[in-house]
Amino acid sequence: MKNCFVAQSGGPTAAINSSLAGVISAVQKTEHFDRIYGLLNGITGLFENRFIDLSEHFATERSLEQLKTTPAMFLGSCRFQLPSVEEDSAVYEKIFAFFKEHDVAAFFYIGGNDSMDTAMKLSAYAKRIGSQVKIIGVPKTIDNDLVHIDHTPGFGSAAKYVAASMLEMAYDTSIYKLNSVTIVEVMGRDAGWLTAATALARTEFSDAPHLIYLPEVPFDTEQFLEDVREKVIQYNNVLVAVSEGIRDAQGNYISATEATVDQFGHSQLSGAGKTLERLVARELGIKVRSVEINILQRCGGHFASRTDLEEAFRLGANAVAYAQEGISGMMSTLTRENGAEGYQVSYGYADLNEIANRVKSVPLSFINEAHNDVTDEAIKYLKPLIQGEYETRYQNGLPCYTPIYCSSNISR
Amino acid sequence: MKNCFVAQSGGPTAAINSSLAGVISAVQKTEHFDRIYGLLNGITGLFENRFIDLSEHFATERSLEQLKTTPAMFLGSCRFQLPSVEEDSAVYEKIFAFFKEHDVAAFFYIGGNDSMDTAMKLSAYAKRIGSQVKIIGVPKTIDNDLVHIDHTPGFGSAAKYVAASMLEMAYDTSIYKLNSVTIVEVMGRDAGWLTAATALARTEFSDAPHLIYLPEVPFDTEQFLEDVREKVIQYNNVLVAVSEGIRDAQGNYISATEATVDQFGHSQLSGAGKTLERLVARELGIKVRSVEINILQRCGGHFASRTDLEEAFRLGANAVAYAQEGISGMMSTLTRENGAEGYQVSYGYADLNEIANRVKSVPLSFINEAHNDVTDEAIKYLKPLIQGEYETRYQNGLPCYTPIYCSSNISR
Repeated sequence: MKNCFVAQSGGPTAAINSSLAGVISAVQKTEHFDRIYGLLNGITGLFENRFIDLSEHFATERSLEQLKTTPAMFLGSCRFQLPSVEEDSAVYEKIFAFFKEHDVAAFFYIGGNDSMDTAMKLSAYAKRIGSQVKIIGVPKTIDNDLVHIDHTPGFGSAAKYVAASMLEMAYDTSIYKLNSVTIVEVMGRDAGWLTAATALARTEFSDAPHLIYLPEVPFDTEQFLEDVREKVIQYNNVLVAVSEGIRDAQGNYISATEATVDQFGHSQLSGAGKTLERLVARELGIKVRSVEINILQRCGGHFASRTDLEEAFRLGANAVAYAQEGISGMMSTLTRENGAEGYQVSYGYADLNEIANRVKSVPLSFINEAHNDVTDEAIKYLKPLIQGEYETRYQNGLPCYTPIYCSSNISR
Repeated sequence: MKNCFVAQSGGPTAAINSSLAGVISAVQKTEHFDRIYGLLNGITGLFENRFIDLSEHFATERSLEQLKTTPAMFLGSCRFQLPSVEEDSAVYEKIFAFFKEHDVAAFFYIGGNDSMDTAMKLSAYAKRIGSQVKIIGVPKTIDNDLVHIDHTPGFGSAAKYVAASMLEMAYDTSIYKLNSVTIVEVMGRDAGWLTAATALARTEFSDAPHLIYLPEVPFDTEQFLEDVREKVIQYNNVLVAVSEGIRDAQGNYISATEATVDQFGHSQLSGAGKTLERLVARELGIKVRSVEINILQRCGGHFASRTDLEEAFRLGANAVAYAQEGISGMMSTLTRENGAEGYQVSYGYADLNEIANRVKSVPLSFINEAHNDVTDEAIKYLKPLIQGEYETRYQNGLPCYTPIYCSSNISR
């Protein structure tokens, strides 16, 4: 009998704990592994010998069910870039000595691009030294920018949150008989997936957002003002979705074009939304506000997408099965099947070497010619990902979440 | 048989349409009134002869049920201050001529302080000219600042939204092993009720928010920095709730103390949260971010408080009963009963003359001595108001809301 370890890394999402629950659940159901341990604060927990026994911690079905809907990382996270073997072989020796000491047969790393890079390096090293430890990556990121997977866990829930928020803001801003512009800034510095998902807010009654700007195409300030002018005539109350990462044709962030200076002479960068708000106020003289959905969009556990949480769970559970089959150096993945049945996915794995350090941008076929909206093809791709709600348990009017184990302010 | 009219006014909430549903439902159940009409865009719809037949519009139970959870105003809103009779008697003559023309027996005005002022003036005028039109106010405001009512409809849902968001942000920000400060700016320029409600985010596992600052007491920048320093040592990841309206001892808004200048030399006001973010970055050098929950906190229909929606409905329905009994010049209200049964309210009415143009601030007994938190008494008052969830109907992964009738961008 052998043990396995799991860790979480990168930025928070509403679904990453569902993948952790999937890993734990699968290990509990197999006799292949003895115990499952969780490293605290990602791979850095290994260097500090900080880990817990998850088999004991989540002994009941109900505790795993609650973990599924808990936002952020139960095990905590880290931002750690594993150096190459050439740069620092000692760190690898330390990791594999730890694996040996704890009788580790498999290591599962749940995270985004950086985490897949770490998993890739570990599996290459394992091969090199003839270690039998299986290394499997489990994807997550609200940015949806990993390759070799149709979409990443965490993205669907964030997309649902921004779409519902956009719809509610469309209601909020359309009650007065006057013209107004509301600019909503959405996360995604390099990839516009989440900003594109605001298009899902459209219903048979509401066309908001009326304009959508992604970082994949250059942002033209003059054209933007022209677009807003036109939409205000058509709709009175105009909602605009912009990615935080929009850039001009020279590649300069729009947020950087209007640096302000505080009373002490320090330069202050505003976000893209605030910058455009000031531009509209100055150039068009229309009532305008900007809203930055901010971190709320990635931690809205009470409003997660059921599709997202279930896929995240399955991707975690599958990783265990792959390790059991002797597979290593792979990321647990899913592929969309274009069947007659509507939206369906099939599960599998893909080589970490082909995933790490690559980025999946929104394809140009998803962006309209005027560069101010997404196409029907984009909506067709996005729509299935926000379907379904999850029954959150409530206590005292608030969602019941599992405490974060390693946090100093959310713990037992 | 006589008709009645209803209108909505002021800023949006998640519960104001529930009060409208209450009014409609009660009129439909009585034989006292013939038809119920809705003025579009508040009282201004009367001047422009813009109104619709609500009896027809909401003929089914299901349509009323959906209206209950729809955020913002179905009938649209206005920001209109009715002049005094001395200033402009013609406007009163116009209104009462309209009432006569449409055989109006009762007018219900759902709104906040300004709307109660309008209702008060109309009822005084009715008395003066011997008109039999009954004028009843129905309260709403997320600010919870109306007097002669224990709490206002709309507040509970906004409180639930900010509390849940605070809890989720506590999760989001506590996953890394480093110190951080997150400053959350909450609505409420003069009254700190909503900011106080962030204290409801505290669970047996989480003490966030660790600091709370309300506009009812002076804000001391030096003391704030001291508070943050202390809490960072204790918690590592500190969450701070601040009202948008916090002021220093001289009465200057904190948001105004750090005006920035853009590249064109225009002075730019930042919010209180952004101002404090810059202060912490500069003075303490700790990783810091600010989050402005913004309009999302008042339009989150998918996450409304069941207690709030039910009370809002009842207050609307009661207004109809009062008019039927011949009562006028009153606001439909509720009082908390301190019984052995836990939280209970009784319903009644209060004189509009004693309500209009007064403001209910957070009492000092709800604020701790250090002016950086709320007391147990505050929590005891606030907790019942966010209890319960409402079954929202979903379509395509989004909440199903009733289109806003008079909007140019959310309509049939």
